[in-house]
Amino acid sequence: MNETKKPSFTCDYEEGAHPAILTRLQETNWCKAAGYGLDEFSESARARIRMAIDCPDAEIHFLAGGTQANAVMIDALLAPYQGVIAAESGHVSLHEAGAIERTGHKVLAVRQENGKMSTADVKAAIGAWEDDLNREHMVMPGMVYVTHPTEFGTLYTLAELEEMSALCHEHGLRFYLDGARFAYALACPENDVALTDLPRLFDAFYLGGTKCGALLGEAAVFPKPGTVPHFFSIQKQHGALLAKGRLLGIQFDELFRDGLYERIGVPAIEAANRIRAALRQAGFSLCYGSPTNQSFALVADSDLPRLGSLAVYDFWEKADADRTIIRFCTSWATTSEDVDALVAALAQW
Amino acid sequence: MNETKKPSFTCDYEEGAHPAILTRLQETNWCKAAGYGLDEFSESARARIRMAIDCPDAEIHFLAGGTQANAVMIDALLAPYQGVIAAESGHVSLHEAGAIERTGHKVLAVRQENGKMSTADVKAAIGAWEDDLNREHMVMPGMVYVTHPTEFGTLYTLAELEEMSALCHEHGLRFYLDGARFAYALACPENDVALTDLPRLFDAFYLGGTKCGALLGEAAVFPKPGTVPHFFSIQKQHGALLAKGRLLGIQFDELFRDGLYERIGVPAIEAANRIRAALRQAGFSLCYGSPTNQSFALVADSDLPRLGSLAVYDFWEKADADRTIIRFCTSWATTSEDVDALVAALAQW
Amino acid sequence: MNETKKPSFTCDYEEGAHPAILTRLQETNWCKAAGYGLDEFSESARARIRMAIDCPDAEIHFLAGGTQANAVMIDALLAPYQGVIAAESGHVSLHEAGAIERTGHKVLAVRQENGKMSTADVKAAIGAWEDDLNREHMVMPGMVYVTHPTEFGTLYTLAELEEMSALCHEHGLRFYLDGARFAYALACPENDVALTDLPRLFDAFYLGGTKCGALLGEAAVFPKPGTVPHFFSIQKQHGALLAKGRLLGIQFDELFRDGLYERIGVPAIEAANRIRAALRQAGFSLCYGSPTNQSFALVADSDLPRLGSLAVYDFWEKADADRTIIRFCTSWATTSEDVDALVAALAQW
Amino acid sequence: MNETKKPSFTCDYEEGAHPAILTRLQETNWCKAAGYGLDEFSESARARIRMAIDCPDAEIHFLAGGTQANAVMIDALLAPYQGVIAAESGHVSLHEAGAIERTGHKVLAVRQENGKMSTADVKAAIGAWEDDLNREHMVMPGMVYVTHPTEFGTLYTLAELEEMSALCHEHGLRFYLDGARFAYALACPENDVALTDLPRLFDAFYLGGTKCGALLGEAAVFPKPGTVPHFFSIQKQHGALLAKGRLLGIQFDELFRDGLYERIGVPAIEAANRIRAALRQAGFSLCYGSPTNQSFALVADSDLPRLGSLAVYDFWEKADADRTIIRFCTSWATTSEDVDALVAALAQW
Repeated sequence: MNETKKPSFTCDYEEGAHPAILTRLQETNWCKAAGYGLDEFSESARARIRMAIDCPDAEIHFLAGGTQANAVMIDALLAPYQGVIAAESGHVSLHEAGAIERTGHKVLAVRQENGKMSTADVKAAIGAWEDDLNREHMVMPGMVYVTHPTEFGTLYTLAELEEMSALCHEHGLRFYLDGARFAYALACPENDVALTDLPRLFDAFYLGGTKCGALLGEAAVFPKPGTVPHFFSIQKQHGALLAKGRLLGIQFDELFRDGLYERIGVPAIEAANRIRAALRQAGFSLCYGSPTNQSFALVADSDLPRLGSLAVYDFWEKADADRTIIRFCTSWATTSEDVDALVAALAQW
Repeated sequence: MNETKKPSFTCDYEEGAHPAILTRLQETNWCKAAGYGLDEFSESARARIRMAIDCPDAEIHFLAGGTQANAVMIDALLAPYQGVIAAESGHVSLHEAGAIERTGHKVLAVRQENGKMSTADVKAAIGAWEDDLNREHMVMPGMVYVTHPTEFGTLYTLAELEEMSALCHEHGLRFYLDGARFAYALACPENDVALTDLPRLFDAFYLGGTKCGALLGEAAVFPKPGTVPHFFSIQKQHGALLAKGRLLGIQFDELFRDGLYERIGVPAIEAANRIRAALRQAGFSLCYGSPTNQSFALVADSDLPRLGSLAVYDFWEKADADRTIIRFCTSWATTSEDVDALVAALAQW
Repeated sequence: MNETKKPSFTCDYEEGAHPAILTRLQETNWCKAAGYGLDEFSESARARIRMAIDCPDAEIHFLAGGTQANAVMIDALLAPYQGVIAAESGHVSLHEAGAIERTGHKVLAVRQENGKMSTADVKAAIGAWEDDLNREHMVMPGMVYVTHPTEFGTLYTLAELEEMSALCHEHGLRFYLDGARFAYALACPENDVALTDLPRLFDAFYLGGTKCGALLGEAAVFPKPGTVPHFFSIQKQHGALLAKGRLLGIQFDELFRDGLYERIGVPAIEAANRIRAALRQAGFSLCYGSPTNQSFALVADSDLPRLGSLAVYDFWEKADADRTIIRFCTSWATTSEDVDALVAALAQW
Repeated sequence: MNETKKPSFTCDYEEGAHPAILTRLQETNWCKAAGYGLDEFSESARARIRMAIDCPDAEIHFLAGGTQANAVMIDALLAPYQGVIAAESGHVSLHEAGAIERTGHKVLAVRQENGKMSTADVKAAIGAWEDDLNREHMVMPGMVYVTHPTEFGTLYTLAELEEMSALCHEHGLRFYLDGARFAYALACPENDVALTDLPRLFDAFYLGGTKCGALLGEAAVFPKPGTVPHFFSIQKQHGALLAKGRLLGIQFDELFRDGLYERIGVPAIEAANRIRAALRQAGFSLCYGSPTNQSFALVADSDLPRLGSLAVYDFWEKADADRTIIRFCTSWATTSEDVDALVAALAQW
């Protein structure tokens, strides 16, 4: 059937896992391993991640998904009366069905531009609380949350993150990175934030597996061990502790073997660059300035059916009455055949 | 090394997954699938489960683990002021690090015998609330929670569950089954509770994957669709929704293909029966009367080192100053070589 | 001392209670009464309120304070996955230290003008959820929260509330009034929302006591009885049920005796009108257009010390680098001597 | 009407407040005071309480009721993964509608005798967690909760509390006193626990007002200031901060003026002693051995109607098929006329 041949770029979790992961699952299937992340695979994965981020003492736990990682870590890091500052477009602000609020914490939304907050706006949000005479009646900001790449595919510069990190620490806030798509930052020439920068910038962060080649899983990292006492129990209490922790350990052991995590996003970025060039060539305006695996185009609504016949894209948002922003998302699994097909079709636009 | 050859019976989640699951993961790896459980694999798995439980309208969702399934489903089914009646030895009472209380609900513990509650005790617990003049100052029982097999490997009879189900429904409570090890009940000749009995007995239940041959996953079933509106959002809000829902769908599609779920526990039960016979023969008393994949023996502390040199067992609890109850747990993955080795060694006791 | 003679207009809860309340407390002190709001005083108060709002079946409970009333009622009315739409300046948005989020619900902030939301903006917020393809990953709006008078002293028109009520009910949302200062609306000629309008407009509301002449207390009203089953237990579970419910019953029985609640704010409004006229006369700009007991003036920072020597006012917010908005708040207890003093002083400005 | 003359002993919160409180409310009614407990009355009350407990640095906050005090303080003192050890008959275990669980914490119930836990049982409960290999899957005990007097009117000895306090602190747990009826302990000759003992025994406690002569209110005491950072915000977030904090301040200022709190329970104890003697004389068995203001009698069901014609008592619990335990509760407000009447009637039994 023709339909099945149409290339699809709807998200970065359409396929299974990187082949190395499946092979390793097969090879290790009959090994007996301890439960709950205490197995040798998880230990090995932790050792590799510590090496990759150059932080030999980091405390590392594995979680099943991004919303879960955010909810468990943010709840564990905040006092009950604290909230988390995040871009109004941040994943925790908008697309987690209230998972943060469910743990009792307010998301303190800050204006964004192309998915990024400015240090000035974050500073203003902190100041608004600090300077208010009634601040004890208000939610105290206890953390700043950033995504990198952002939900719009954009990147902070290292300098921006250093500035924001310093701001947080001056004011006693935690600085936290949601790295759901961090592998796509690493693969992107425009990115200047290395794995080894993370431990000194952030009090806690997670490195995404689900969107970066794993079947599921995120690696939660606390550069300073003991940052959250009894994190194991907290995971369990949140229903976020897998009995067969090996499943997460094996995957991160593969993702961080021989630097795979730093390479796995490369085809996604190359594909995205080709798609962006072709879109531009075909006369479409690109949005937000994303240099990573997500590409956004502004499209007249009347062009949508024809575009939809060429490839499966993702609806992003209505730009105005007559135009829509759509997303083409590539991933570690994107094939050059699919990109060729789309590029060729756009060349005829 | 000798050590690695010592057979291990510490739990039923020591290995990876049933080979059919790994094969299917491999075969489907490059298929593109929708996220969040809306994929065709999950749909197929749902269809197979509906067929197996003979309940064409059942609403089915997949969750990652047992504690998560309990917390999400129980929270979703109870009003905020309600609690859940459970055996004092129930998984929700003891071994979920307070996951149920974290959702705001009290576990109303009831006396157990060999892991089972009697209908009379449950009735008394309900009556204690109903008859109390101050009941509006107390936690209203909103649900009865049972495990089958129980944490002690024992089984309710169908008649007992029918009686408890009727009791619940007369008094307006939900009846809920934690079926983490249900496949081991199905494989056990002493069991008379069929998959097809579950929809009429229970308002909600989950069929365990993690302990029954999957890498991870539990199938949450609401026989009556719409029992919990917006369960999808609730899952998301609990951090319990996998982006790659296919991972759970594929596994349950395999577990319920050609009746595998009803057969997968058979080797575990056969192995357990052989181990129990050998233990008895060697002069050990068995505890609790478990006919399923968990076997418990009462052992003089002075015998523990020698037993430990024969096989890896699980410490269960101190019986008294000089004696300990230990557990031998078999699973779908237990090999006859391992059982042979233990049985042979016990024959020499 | 001179200082103590300086009139104070910092808030509407500086004094104790209306004398009728103290007298009644004295008279009834030795009467024995049932606990937890089941006493005859509370029953009488409920009867008077039902009469005043012309809603013979209304279910009425008494709570201790405004934040408590909002948190308990909003939590009781929303499903766990729902949030509440409120003005970004709403009490629940800003000044309850995250009490709503603590119950697990997101406050969905909407743009305000002079403390009021427009129906169009509320409609857009509801539509943003309804029209989003990913809405099941987002917080569903379950309620619209308004204050009347608002935090800025302004009033909705009856027509505006009717429109917003219709909007809510068309879309399946609850409509909720925080009436902390409702007595000041009732005393204000510009107000066209009567007590008898509330039951048809709102699914739930509370009539403020703390700011309107009581020592403490708010009357929570559900026009349709049974709107929230087991509200009594919910109150208790929130720590929001007073043992000596008589204390609240007696106060509301007095506040609603012979229409006191509709008259008690009159001196506050008269005083505020005199203060506003005097401020205007003295050349200050008034802000927000409040016609109720709160008056806001835009003041050059250099004028603050002299103003502060005349009367105690409340800092509201910085308007810009050189100017501040300050508040003069009158109440049921404001004396004409205090107003005379301020007006006389302003006349010399 | 005769009925109204029948003496009533149903609970210790049937009347209003001690006359000194009402007088002071009257006297201070027109004084302007700061809100939220920052007023001079509250400050004065704090100073008097610090003096009475001989703890000049104690941090003191006022709350509205007992369930609220327990929920706010216990939640504030525990880590999210911790639970509170309490007698199975403790107020937090049974009669707070799940208020503790609502804050996410499990109540770890321990066997009681006459309302008291033994240090041995508490030690065993702590040990059960500490010694369990799977303790990270279980709820960690973080606090021990006692009531004094207990729900059964009984008293711990100072030696018992010292022992339990030492046990708690050896094992890193907090020790917490619910002193809802502490004034009745102070008035009781059998009691050897003084106000001045509390700061060295307990990490936190509250001294009851509601049941001891106030209209409402409990004084929460942290002997070590800063035990809970931002307690003010926590109170607010729980909806447990009164705007007119003066109402609580004034009452505790009176209760602790000239040692009133230590005397206020004396008539209650004298009355209870007379009632107990009369009940014994009339041939009834007393239960639990309460020496305080609550008296319990074992009564044949057939005697209940006649007893009920003499006085209003409180149903406590069914003892067996034919007998009931009933409670006679006296208070600071009990009159000698009422006691005379009951004693005279019992003399004729």
